[in-house]
Amino acid sequence: MRILFDAYGGDNTPDEAIKAARLAKDQYPIELTLVGDSEAIAHRAGQLGVSLDGIDLHHAPTAITMEDEPTDVLKRLSDCSMAEGLRLLHQGEGDAFVSGGNTGALVVGATMIVKRIKGVKRAALTALIPSATGNYLLLDVGANADCRPEMLAQFAVMGSAYMEKIVGVKEPRVGIANIGTEEHKGTDLQRQALALLKDAPINFIGNAEVRDVPLGCADVVVCDGFTGNVMLKLTEGLAKMFVGELKQVLFKNLLTKMGALTLSGSLKSFKQKLDYKKSGGAPLLGLMRPVIKAHGSSDAEAFQNAIRQAVSMVENRVVETTEQAMTQLNSQLKQRAGAQEQ
Amino acid sequence: MRILFDAYGGDNTPDEAIKAARLAKDQYPIELTLVGDSEAIAHRAGQLGVSLDGIDLHHAPTAITMEDEPTDVLKRLSDCSMAEGLRLLHQGEGDAFVSGGNTGALVVGATMIVKRIKGVKRAALTALIPSATGNYLLLDVGANADCRPEMLAQFAVMGSAYMEKIVGVKEPRVGIANIGTEEHKGTDLQRQALALLKDAPINFIGNAEVRDVPLGCADVVVCDGFTGNVMLKLTEGLAKMFVGELKQVLFKNLLTKMGALTLSGSLKSFKQKLDYKKSGGAPLLGLMRPVIKAHGSSDAEAFQNAIRQAVSMVENRVVETTEQAMTQLNSQLKQRAGAQEQ
Repeated sequence: MRILFDAYGGDNTPDEAIKAARLAKDQYPIELTLVGDSEAIAHRAGQLGVSLDGIDLHHAPTAITMEDEPTDVLKRLSDCSMAEGLRLLHQGEGDAFVSGGNTGALVVGATMIVKRIKGVKRAALTALIPSATGNYLLLDVGANADCRPEMLAQFAVMGSAYMEKIVGVKEPRVGIANIGTEEHKGTDLQRQALALLKDAPINFIGNAEVRDVPLGCADVVVCDGFTGNVMLKLTEGLAKMFVGELKQVLFKNLLTKMGALTLSGSLKSFKQKLDYKKSGGAPLLGLMRPVIKAHGSSDAEAFQNAIRQAVSMVENRVVETTEQAMTQLNSQLKQRAGAQEQ
Repeated sequence: MRILFDAYGGDNTPDEAIKAARLAKDQYPIELTLVGDSEAIAHRAGQLGVSLDGIDLHHAPTAITMEDEPTDVLKRLSDCSMAEGLRLLHQGEGDAFVSGGNTGALVVGATMIVKRIKGVKRAALTALIPSATGNYLLLDVGANADCRPEMLAQFAVMGSAYMEKIVGVKEPRVGIANIGTEEHKGTDLQRQALALLKDAPINFIGNAEVRDVPLGCADVVVCDGFTGNVMLKLTEGLAKMFVGELKQVLFKNLLTKMGALTLSGSLKSFKQKLDYKKSGGAPLLGLMRPVIKAHGSSDAEAFQNAIRQAVSMVENRVVETTEQAMTQLNSQLKQRAGAQEQ
């Protein structure tokens, strides 16, 4: 297995990418290709004292930044490390691609270069978010601001396959993010997606009332990319607010400071649970081969986790499972549309 | 000033409504009419030992429940306490109406019976939500799942008037809930609303990135009712999850229990800040007269707060301010549409 890894995707690259490549190569039985300005990578590795033994370099002269337009990955910056990595993946010169770069560019690039699984309308961006009982997979979290009901149905199938194969949740409970559990709730999008998913080849539980989502009411939660991104960002913002409020409470006076001291270990683990950014990367689902979006702020450890995730997606044949489930779903949707026409 | 108060709207009515009526009548210089089954109210007040001296009763034989359809308030249950209260308000036999009953029914009933301010396309449901720096007003939080850009522009003006007049925030910063601050972010709804609001007679700050909303980036945040309800419910769910996690951390072992003990007062105030349900009711904005939705789970204190809010809305002439701002906005929108046609 060969993992392709973008050496210039993220705030702390190439340094943290170089370190992560070393850690991953030493710990996992994989081949690894670092994509980026190979001379600069070799030079910087020397300065950092990190050996590149056994790690392959693939040269790409430019890099796409957070400020560039997503479509630049196809045109103006088609020789950037991200585009080059995606091309290698498409050509079969690697089994998965990991990048911490421009999210929009990665979605556009992966869709156009790696291409989607047959029958998949749109690739989806995911986030694995902590809940009271574990984690739930939220998708789409921003690749597609506007969605049609068929897309939500497909996200459900794609998310279910990932959650079962990679996170290890048996028969994951899949729900539609909605403002109530009743069938008539929400907009046309939720109502029509609900109808489409009734016979889908997954453990579909209907609407997931958003209030209960952080409490663990579903393992996979599907929605349009606008709603998903709102949920993701509100979760991040509230976590930050809560931790801030808590700090104010804890360091109010000497007595509470002493209390806080006895709690410091526990509070740290509380904070860490909320800081899910460290848990790895977010897979883009629906593509012909695994593509993982690592957080832009990733350090070596976070990048290494994202690489481990890519390895797991290849080992567990997520793409193949998704392909099969998607064929089943699409034939059901076709039958359904045919029955409605008659 | 006369406040009309639904004696049968909420989980704990009529008992808590009767107690709240007494408290409000004793503390505020107002006339108060309790609307509902007057014989039952008088009987129950006697049992509770609460005097109804100086409180007027207006008879309504039925009550609408959470299980009834919103439109029942107009037809099957048009003699319920909520419908009767709204009719009194429309007829000028009161200055504001407070109810903790079926939210959907209150939106439908208020819109059809009390009617909207001239030029207002839809009434909006609001929520005042705690942030790191104070509170922000979110609207719409569920009255209109689907919205057009003009509606968001009107919500912005309505919310601004309320926040300035009632909450006392000078020149409140008004933003559109969005998945980024850049002008191209979001869907057509956000982009078009942004264009409409550029010259609006408010302190418009553009897009409010959802991640920053709990941190206090705006005083008024507008969105469609689906997104608003998702934000409201996710905030509630996450607050519950965080408090639960925190409890687990605090009561892990003897040492942390001791720590928790020294912190108990502070943690209680932390929890209370998150539990914004106690802070009163949510006004329905855009109506010819003030209508306040108290929480369904309100106790006497919460109902009393909602009544105080109603008093404040009448005293501060929120409806009149909204009317003026709305005329200004609508004439701007018309000019704009005219300019585009030419």
